[in-house]
Amino acid sequence: MQTVSDITILDEPEVDLIDYMGTDADICDAARVSTNANVTISDIAKDRGLINYLMEHKHGSPFEHNSMKFYVKAPIFVFREFHRHRIGFSYNEMSGRYTELPADFYVPSLKRPLVNFGTSARPEYRLPQGEEEINEHARLHMIVNTDFIDVYTFAWEKYKHMLSEGIAKEVARDVLPVGIYSQMYVTCNARSLMHFLSLRIEDLSARYPSHPLYEIQQVALKMEELFKNQFPITYAMFIKNGRVAP
Amino acid sequence: MQTVSDITILDEPEVDLIDYMGTDADICDAARVSTNANVTISDIAKDRGLINYLMEHKHGSPFEHNSMKFYVKAPIFVFREFHRHRIGFSYNEMSGRYTELPADFYVPSLKRPLVNFGTSARPEYRLPQGEEEINEHARLHMIVNTDFIDVYTFAWEKYKHMLSEGIAKEVARDVLPVGIYSQMYVTCNARSLMHFLSLRIEDLSARYPSHPLYEIQQVALKMEELFKNQFPITYAMFIKNGRVAP
Amino acid sequence: MQTVSDITILDEPEVDLIDYMGTDADICDAARVSTNANVTISDIAKDRGLINYLMEHKHGSPFEHNSMKFYVKAPIFVFREFHRHRIGFSYNEMSGRYTELPADFYVPSLKRPLVNFGTSARPEYRLPQGEEEINEHARLHMIVNTDFIDVYTFAWEKYKHMLSEGIAKEVARDVLPVGIYSQMYVTCNARSLMHFLSLRIEDLSARYPSHPLYEIQQVALKMEELFKNQFPITYAMFIKNGRVAP
Amino acid sequence: MQTVSDITILDEPEVDLIDYMGTDADICDAARVSTNANVTISDIAKDRGLINYLMEHKHGSPFEHNSMKFYVKAPIFVFREFHRHRIGFSYNEMSGRYTELPADFYVPSLKRPLVNFGTSARPEYRLPQGEEEINEHARLHMIVNTDFIDVYTFAWEKYKHMLSEGIAKEVARDVLPVGIYSQMYVTCNARSLMHFLSLRIEDLSARYPSHPLYEIQQVALKMEELFKNQFPITYAMFIKNGRVAP
Repeated sequence: MQTVSDITILDEPEVDLIDYMGTDADICDAARVSTNANVTISDIAKDRGLINYLMEHKHGSPFEHNSMKFYVKAPIFVFREFHRHRIGFSYNEMSGRYTELPADFYVPSLKRPLVNFGTSARPEYRLPQGEEEINEHARLHMIVNTDFIDVYTFAWEKYKHMLSEGIAKEVARDVLPVGIYSQMYVTCNARSLMHFLSLRIEDLSARYPSHPLYEIQQVALKMEELFKNQFPITYAMFIKNGRVAP
Repeated sequence: MQTVSDITILDEPEVDLIDYMGTDADICDAARVSTNANVTISDIAKDRGLINYLMEHKHGSPFEHNSMKFYVKAPIFVFREFHRHRIGFSYNEMSGRYTELPADFYVPSLKRPLVNFGTSARPEYRLPQGEEEINEHARLHMIVNTDFIDVYTFAWEKYKHMLSEGIAKEVARDVLPVGIYSQMYVTCNARSLMHFLSLRIEDLSARYPSHPLYEIQQVALKMEELFKNQFPITYAMFIKNGRVAP
Repeated sequence: MQTVSDITILDEPEVDLIDYMGTDADICDAARVSTNANVTISDIAKDRGLINYLMEHKHGSPFEHNSMKFYVKAPIFVFREFHRHRIGFSYNEMSGRYTELPADFYVPSLKRPLVNFGTSARPEYRLPQGEEEINEHARLHMIVNTDFIDVYTFAWEKYKHMLSEGIAKEVARDVLPVGIYSQMYVTCNARSLMHFLSLRIEDLSARYPSHPLYEIQQVALKMEELFKNQFPITYAMFIKNGRVAP
Repeated sequence: MQTVSDITILDEPEVDLIDYMGTDADICDAARVSTNANVTISDIAKDRGLINYLMEHKHGSPFEHNSMKFYVKAPIFVFREFHRHRIGFSYNEMSGRYTELPADFYVPSLKRPLVNFGTSARPEYRLPQGEEEINEHARLHMIVNTDFIDVYTFAWEKYKHMLSEGIAKEVARDVLPVGIYSQMYVTCNARSLMHFLSLRIEDLSARYPSHPLYEIQQVALKMEELFKNQFPITYAMFIKNGRVAP
């Protein structure tokens, strides 16, 4: 975190698990209702087998009887991608119509590749290798850092100017760049979350490797960690089955 | 509950709340994220006002960041209506393909009207009034009781016969009447549940009085009671706003 | 089709495509909006390549900007499975509350296996082989034929009896077996339909072979044929990609 | 339309109906399947009555068996609100990851109120009245015009600068303001569209008057016009019933 005149510069999202319902055992329980199986004592080995079976055969509904409520703070361009996930996702986001937005802006850290290697149809990230690429990477980062902060501070100054003149927040905010942070609650279930993770995390060992935007992956990785803690068996079987959501 | 030869006769559904996430305060919290309002101490009077406002203005999304997981046991013809609720509902039901279904069958109690009064486009239930109607009601109930049990026992006998001959469960069950009970888990949130309740409970003081099937209303009334206990302010404001789901 | 006393016996569903919107070219067009590609002359070779790419990389949204409206007539136990498809599916079905149901009932043809071979967790259909199995199959079919028609005619007689006594349709129908036919409109798009087909058609060469109920597969095969006629390239690429819906 | 240095200034969205399926008569047809009504000759008076009945009693499903595919060009801050409509909406949008975005930017016309009158909880638009307000309105518009174009041209210049240095489009675009135009296909059905219109058009005679953002209302009004042409009876009954989506 860095403060430049009136604005704050961030290079990470914030993700917290606010509340949840359900465990791996509940997923098994929901699956067993279809066969009326009377398994009173949970047996971890059996649960692993059952969850693996559900995942393999794409029986998705038992993964829906649970809930996770996340708080997410990330740039608007990340939320734009996030909100395209319609099924099994609920959102409440801070509104620039009713609120003066906080002056939090995104500038990529040095870990963020700035050049898409590969074909245009399927660009791929990689970090610079060799002295030449590393120098070029540093040079580009300097440009990004300067240009981003220049635009952000200029846009913020004009935004504040318009507010001070009495112009409505919902008009003044039109000049704010998509790199500004917003905040929301996201609620989903294990099935919808796994679908999100399958698309928003790059994993070359996945059955269908995806090529997500770096910054939405930053969010997805934090969500994945919280998911893994809450549903360790489900998570393990998800990975085992090539990150294909059931 | 009544047992006739091999089958069990029931006239009520069973509904339990198995698990849940969230409270009225969480609904307010989700709404406040949009204005970034920093209300740390919950204030019940303010919460009532806010929830009423959300309901009145049909701001539905804050009612989605919570979850209720129900167990429901009811006849198949009830489940057929229930499953038409697609949005914000998750289901796992006992399967007649994999399980020999339990011999639980529905016969209406004397409280169930048997005649649709009113126009065909908008039939209305009412209980019999006056000696003549009461006698007719009793006579019809006797017919229903006899005919239902006759068909159920005959169909059950044939079902068991086919199973004993080695015919697959998924074939033999085709003869079972829609009055047989099934069992499922249903998970939903306060918003989707209110939508369900608005359609599946008859309330003449509602803004849009609906005319649900008696037996799905039996289920809905039990769900409503559990919902009311868990979200008392939300429930009160739902009723105050004419049972119109936000 | 066979008529026994008052009821009609059927062993097939009916599926018609009533209306549709869109073609393979429209799917490509929707995909190209994301890259603002200005492809004015459609080129079938390019379209095949693009649709294959979308399918392979699970870019599903371009397959949603189209619509197919089907009429389906099938037994209630088939509709019960069908209605579990919630996303991207719209339904309007004949109602036993308002209509006296037509006396159309399902009895399996000789092509329908009656025994599940294999393990209980993953039963598999196959037709009888060798004299002994063939004889057994014929014997079981005779039982099914007799028992089904016995229950259907008995239930139908009681249903008509109750109606004639003045009992409401919505009560009398509780005795009707799940093997009775119903009718509905189903509207969906290519993406939701492919998801349905991937689960409801058994194809051992599919990436995730499913084990659907014989009778819902009868419906799915007819829908697939109509889909193939309307979207031949999309269909071909769906098969090429192992019947995995994007 | 106005061109300032390299950028184009627009104050209107663009909305076209690209394709559609269905008519008012099809909505009636879908409703009649539930009663098996055999109405072969469409009768406009009857259709009006039936559609009004469906609307009044919130029988929504018959309004789903149709489809409209729109092309929409509007600012990103409008799309952000649009995409919150999840149910029955499909989207494909131009991507700033793969495309250099066109330099089209939004500046409000003089018809756009710039001040929210009324309480903060429920701000209301109105145009200035009396000399003093009119002068103030003109003064504020001048500020908005100047500040918007200043930020847009500065951000665009930096965007182009970063691209020319070889920085990836998906990084450089982070500085672009939410007032830049994007383009998408939107596909929905009459039911989901009416829900959208009920929330995104201000109509003080509606049963639940909403207070949408001016710019999303510009889009909604154009969609409403196209909807009205395609489904005139449905539209008339929607208005008659207080703009409450069924």
